[in-house]
Formats: sequence, structure tokens, C-alpha cells
Amino acid sequence: MDYEHMMQRTLIIQTPQAIGQPVRLKGWVHTRRDHGKIIFLDLRDRSGVVQIVVVPSNAVCYAAAKDVCAECVVEIIGTVKERPGGTVNEHLPTGGVEIECTSLSVLARPVDELPVDITKEDMELQLSTLLDHRSLTLRNKKINDIFAVYDCVLRSYAAACRMDGFREIKTPKILAAATEGGANFFKINYFDRSAYLAQSPQFYKQAGVGAFERVFEIGPVFRAEPHFTARHVNEYISLDAEMGFIDGFEDVMIQLEKVLKSITVAVAEQYPLVLEEYGQTLALPEHFPRMKLAEAMDILKKHYGKETDDGDIDAEGEKLICEYVKKEYDSDAVFLTHYPVAVRPMYVMPSPNDPMVTESFDLLYRGVEIATGGQRIHIYDDLVVSIKKHGLSPEDFSGYLAIFKNGMPPHGGWGMGSERVVQKMLGLGNVREAILFPRDVKRLEP
Amino acid sequence: MDYEHMMQRTLIIQTPQAIGQPVRLKGWVHTRRDHGKIIFLDLRDRSGVVQIVVVPSNAVCYAAAKDVCAECVVEIIGTVKERPGGTVNEHLPTGGVEIECTSLSVLARPVDELPVDITKEDMELQLSTLLDHRSLTLRNKKINDIFAVYDCVLRSYAAACRMDGFREIKTPKILAAATEGGANFFKINYFDRSAYLAQSPQFYKQAGVGAFERVFEIGPVFRAEPHFTARHVNEYISLDAEMGFIDGFEDVMIQLEKVLKSITVAVAEQYPLVLEEYGQTLALPEHFPRMKLAEAMDILKKHYGKETDDGDIDAEGEKLICEYVKKEYDSDAVFLTHYPVAVRPMYVMPSPNDPMVTESFDLLYRGVEIATGGQRIHIYDDLVVSIKKHGLSPEDFSGYLAIFKNGMPPHGGWGMGSERVVQKMLGLGNVREAILFPRDVKRLEP
Repeated sequence: MDYEHMMQRTLIIQTPQAIGQPVRLKGWVHTRRDHGKIIFLDLRDRSGVVQIVVVPSNAVCYAAAKDVCAECVVEIIGTVKERPGGTVNEHLPTGGVEIECTSLSVLARPVDELPVDITKEDMELQLSTLLDHRSLTLRNKKINDIFAVYDCVLRSYAAACRMDGFREIKTPKILAAATEGGANFFKINYFDRSAYLAQSPQFYKQAGVGAFERVFEIGPVFRAEPHFTARHVNEYISLDAEMGFIDGFEDVMIQLEKVLKSITVAVAEQYPLVLEEYGQTLALPEHFPRMKLAEAMDILKKHYGKETDDGDIDAEGEKLICEYVKKEYDSDAVFLTHYPVAVRPMYVMPSPNDPMVTESFDLLYRGVEIATGGQRIHIYDDLVVSIKKHGLSPEDFSGYLAIFKNGMPPHGGWGMGSERVVQKMLGLGNVREAILFPRDVKRLEP
Repeated sequence: MDYEHMMQRTLIIQTPQAIGQPVRLKGWVHTRRDHGKIIFLDLRDRSGVVQIVVVPSNAVCYAAAKDVCAECVVEIIGTVKERPGGTVNEHLPTGGVEIECTSLSVLARPVDELPVDITKEDMELQLSTLLDHRSLTLRNKKINDIFAVYDCVLRSYAAACRMDGFREIKTPKILAAATEGGANFFKINYFDRSAYLAQSPQFYKQAGVGAFERVFEIGPVFRAEPHFTARHVNEYISLDAEMGFIDGFEDVMIQLEKVLKSITVAVAEQYPLVLEEYGQTLALPEHFPRMKLAEAMDILKKHYGKETDDGDIDAEGEKLICEYVKKEYDSDAVFLTHYPVAVRPMYVMPSPNDPMVTESFDLLYRGVEIATGGQRIHIYDDLVVSIKKHGLSPEDFSGYLAIFKNGMPPHGGWGMGSERVVQKMLGLGNVREAILFPRDVKRLEP
């Protein structure tokens, strides 16, 4: 296999040294244009696009080129030439060269007419059409770039965690019981009994703290919530972390803002052209503003005439608070803190000075909640009390409670939705656009 | 939070500059020993263990120390002193210092008597006991170290893939249909219908090739197989990769051996003491031997008197072949190739010169199959034929077949069991030992 040329194509076509060199390239026919007797092909691979010129004098090659269409997979042999004009496609790194083709063979071709045109800069399709033809629409440059950023988020999240001594763990997604105090679990037939899909790695990452102090996990979580919004799906990749020996939940927020900043810096440094393509700039302050939930509610009432009385704020409220914070503090991110005990799970630490609220937070970023976290209860007896207070039965949590029989340090952590991070960084309208093959109430395919 | 000291503990206690410095440390009481009137505590955190000395002259501190037991979580304030003796525990980096304690506070303590003693070098427990008390037994140094290696495997797998241009993807684990030609799927209640848990990311990573050419994924896979062996579990983390524009499945084997070598080199460089602790050395040749399955069967018959006639070899056969390869070629790894069409899924590429066998392989490592891979069929019509040949219906695979309507390059890849890699690298008797919280037919807890 011609790794050398495959790997270095962009490099080759951008250096003067490449002129006159023979190349063997494989890729997709991005477009074909016939100008008089000359056939121009834009050949696309993961490194970019280069123009292929086929002239009639090479009869065999020309006949082959006559027979290709968009998305044909071809192998080209030719020579790098300086290119007279500029670039055909300003959004792809075509550079100032072209390939004079001496041999062309077709490795595979589309079976039917392509249902959508992926060569457009903006596909401008309905989301459902975009997703129905996902294996094709992912080939569109602008859509493809979302997943370059997604890869960068995964990589930089892991790197930022490891930098501070977090160990990567993988915890089970099949659970014996639908615990955690939530009802939104998918049920599985597990041999001769029932089991449930994990809606978070919460209990297991806490056990991880007992063994490793600091852990992180990147893995799927499953939520059987019948939501039909632009920010909910039923399966997503959660970026979790949990850390021991904290002095309080401020330590968790400091760590999380460090990690999120690190991700945005990595994306800004490595994908400036993608950010430009999406019209985005990423800048976060060293520390994000913190605001008590009660304070946020006052602001919503005072500045936006919006009242909520269930002890939490809704999606519109989160959006408005982000607008307010952007205006007042010039920050894209804000921590809302001290959520009421009543709206938080039983494992969340109550505040020492006000036991009606908790040492917990939501992290809002550009109008949407991207992470939830806080300090957890680490004392066995306190946890038993909290479970009961939440109307639950300690017997149902014996496995979880066992962790706390061994001596657990004060600890806390977060869960962050990877796809929402990418969605908001690129300004995508729907979280589904940041997921290769999203799963929602209605969609299980492709 | 005293990050500085938490992070640098090992460093502090190993440098002469630390002598005389004040420190604030948090950790678990690993052991407590009373020698006459002096109390010695071994304090453990993720960086190691250090000896704490508490003398009666500090009455408050002494009274607190009198009250601690193993696995108490404590905070210590004291001064670093040169230590008269050697090291108490040669397996932990205790170095030549100790802490003269001036303040001790208990942050949490065990609720009951600890069910097992984690301070032993080897726990020597039955596997079921080890797993029943997992959140405690993970604190044992030797067991804990398995997951340092596991973290290293995850990290170095991703790094090796990225180095060669593979993009990390995350694909759905909830599927609409139990396809892929296997029957071993877990069924889920998905709102008003049924769905299934993915037993591999096979179809989706192939779609990934169409968009990104080279992809890798680290994620859980679910197998509803009622196996009761030391090498099977029902949920594990698969290290998948898929690559486009290959000339043949040899390209896939070259890439996989490069990745596996890279992993073993990373572990050997970063965790030499863990390998020593487990009595292991890791060395792999540049290229692993390749052997046709038919040839392997001849060897089994000729050298070991072992016959199999179902076109595949069993666990014992894999072990014997590895012994043979170790003896003959001095390699811990071997590719068995050209498995019969009949024992491979419908997407596997038949060999051009012998359509009864396939362009596929198993990678055996130290006696066990750790990976399966090969070239896939990339031509739509050929795939339809193969689906029918396998007694399946193309209608059931319309979503999968859609990928091949767009022009797919020749491609192939592998799936590798992360836990088996760690198991065999460390010589563990059971794959469950390399999983934090394993899932099998009988075990869903903890």
C-alpha cells in the first residue's frame, strides 16, 4: 500500500519539491468536469482534494475517466504539475498543483444515483434527511469537520485529565438494578433475568475514587427520557471525572474549568480553519463566574420577567442566564451552584450552612447545560440518611453503600456531555449534528 | 486543597531537599503499628506510602492516632525527617524519609471490620471473593497496578492509532436490529419497541471508513453468550479500528502488529516495576509469524495429536499453537489466517484464489485470541451475494448495504479485547482480573 503518498498528499501538493514527481493516489472522485476534450477530476481523500487532469492522448486512461462519476473510488497514477490557475475550491487544501494522470482504475462505484450532493459548502438539508443519509452526508467537508473537532475533544479531555493525575477507567454499562434514584432506565433481558443500562457511571466512578483517588471515564450513557428537543438524545458519550480529597466542591469547579479551557484551547489551536468555517471563536476566562441558583432566578425575574417555582430553571432560563453572564461578565460559561436538595440525587452533599441546598453545580456554556457535578456524601451514615430523605430505601443501595464502609475520602466530580460541548463550540443548531449516528425516541437507524 | 503536596508526595519523600519541610498530607491509613509508646502509621495515597510517626508528647495528635484503624481516611500535618532504618515495605516507594506528625484528623473511617486484608503483597483470595469486595480489593497495591497498566493500554492504543492518521469515533450501542449474522444479542425495551445492544461497532466503523478513511473506537461491546470460561465475559471494552484503501488484509495485520507492539513498548517503558511485580517481560518481534489456519491444524495434528473438524480451532488449540510458535519462532504473538467462509461473518472478504477461505485473521497472544480482523467486502453486489450465501436476507441488512451504495474503498480492520491484552501481558489467570467490575452470566454486582 502506498502509505507514503496517501499520508503526505497535502504535503506533496503544497511543496515546490513535489513538482515533477510521480504519484500513486487513491481516493474518491469529488467532482468531474469535462472542459472540451479535457476531463478534470477533483480527487478527495482524508488529507484534502487535488485536481486530476486527464487528456485524450492517453486513450486507455481517458476511456476510464470518461466512465467515472462522483463518489467513484479510484486509483490514479500520474505526475505532479504546477497549476496555471488558482484553487478550484477555496475550502479544500488544493494548493497550486495538479496531477497529470497516466493511469486510472476504478475500485468501486456508487450503485444508484446519489440521493444528495455532498460537494456543496453548506448542505442545507433538513436534519432528518441529513441523518437518513448519514454515511454519505458525513463525506461533506463541513460536516466531516465536526468530527475532526469531536476527535480533538476526546483527545484533549483525556490529556487534560491525565495531566492532573486522573486515571482512565471503564465501568460496566449493564447494571443489576435501576438505582441512582432515577426512573429513566432502559431494561434489558439478561439471560434469565432483567438488567438495566447505566444512565451514568456515577456509583462506579465513586468506587474508583476509593481505589485510585482521581479517575475519569469516556463512555456511553443511556437515558430512557422521552424528550423531543434539540439538546436531548437517548444515548450519548459522557465525559466523567471524579476526584478524592477535595476540600469542597469549589475544587471540582476549578478542575472542570481547567479541563474545559484546555479542550477549547486545543480545538482553537488545532482547528482554526474549522472554527472559521463555522464562524466561531473560542475564548474562556481563567475562571468562570459562579452564581447561586437562587441568584440566577432573581436575575431571571428581575431582568427577564421570568418566574419558575419548581426550584430549578428550564432550558429558556439557562439560555437567558448565559446571555446575562455574557453581557455582564463577558464569559461564555457560568457555574450555577447550590441547587436544592429536592432536585438533586441522594448522593449529593448538602451545604453545611444551608441543608436545603447542595454543594453542587451545573455548568452552562453558550446557553445550554453541558455538565453537572458537585461534592458527594462520603460518610456512610450520612448517605443512609440522605437515601431515606429522598424517599428511597437503603436496602436497594446495598452495593453502593458497601463502597462507603471502607473509608472514603471527601470527593466530587462531574459528568459532561461531549456532544453538547462540540455542538456549542461550533454553534450547531442541534446536538444530533455532533453525533455520528444519533439515537432518539424515534431514531435507531442508521 | 493542597494540590502541591498531594501531587508531589513521592517526589518530596525521595529528595534530600524535603528533609525538614512541613507537609500536609491526606490519605488512607494503610497499617498502624504500636511500638511501645510510639505509633507508626503507613499513610497511603495514589503516589505511594509514607511512614507517619506519632509520639505521646503531642497529646491531642496522639489521642487521635490511638483511635485510627486501617483504611481510615486521615489528614496529617507534620515535618519530613530522615528515616533511621530502611524501607518498611519494599513494594511501595516509601523511600528514606518519614513524617513526624503534629496534627491528625480523621475524615472518614470504615464502618465494619474490613472483610479482607489488603496490605498483603498477594491477596490469595478466590476470584469470587476478590470481586465481591471489589471496591476494597482494588486498594491492594498489586491489584491496583493492573489498572495502571490498563490505563496505559487505553492511552497508548489511542496514541498509536492517531499517529497513523486514525480518527477516534464513537458509535451507537443501541441498535434497531440484531444483525451482523450473530444470535448473541441482548434485547432492550426501547420505548414502544425492542432494540438490541451492539456486539461490535462493525457496521458503523465501516461507515466511518467511507467518511474518514481511518477510524478507531474504544468502547463497550455486549455479548449474550452463555460462556463460563476464564477468558469470556458478557461486556468488555473493544479496541476497534478500520482502515480504507488497503491493498489487502496484510496491510491490516501490519497496522495491528505495529499498534500492539506500541502498546507493549509503552507498558514496558512506563511500568517496569509492575511487570517485575507480575514476573513478566514484554518483547514482540517486529513482525509476528503468519500461519494459515489449515497449517495450524496440521501442526496440532502432527505435533500434539489434536484433531478438529469444524473448520476452526478451540481454546486448547490456540494455546498449543502459541506454544509451538514460541518454540519455533520465539514470538509471543501469531496471526492465524484464512479462516473458512463458513466460520466467518458475511462481511468478510473471500480469498481471491480460494473462495472457501477468507482474507481474515485471528491474532493469538500468549495462548489466547486477543483480536479478530481482516478485509471486508466493499462491493455492493458482492456483499448481497455473500449475505445470501450465509443464509441471510439482504432485506434485513438494508441499512448496512446503504453504506456500499456510495462507493466504498477496499478496507479492513480489527476488534481487539482490551482486557485480554492486559490479562496476558501480566499473566493473569482470568480476564475478570483485568476488569474493574466484570459482567458475566452470573455476575452483575458489584
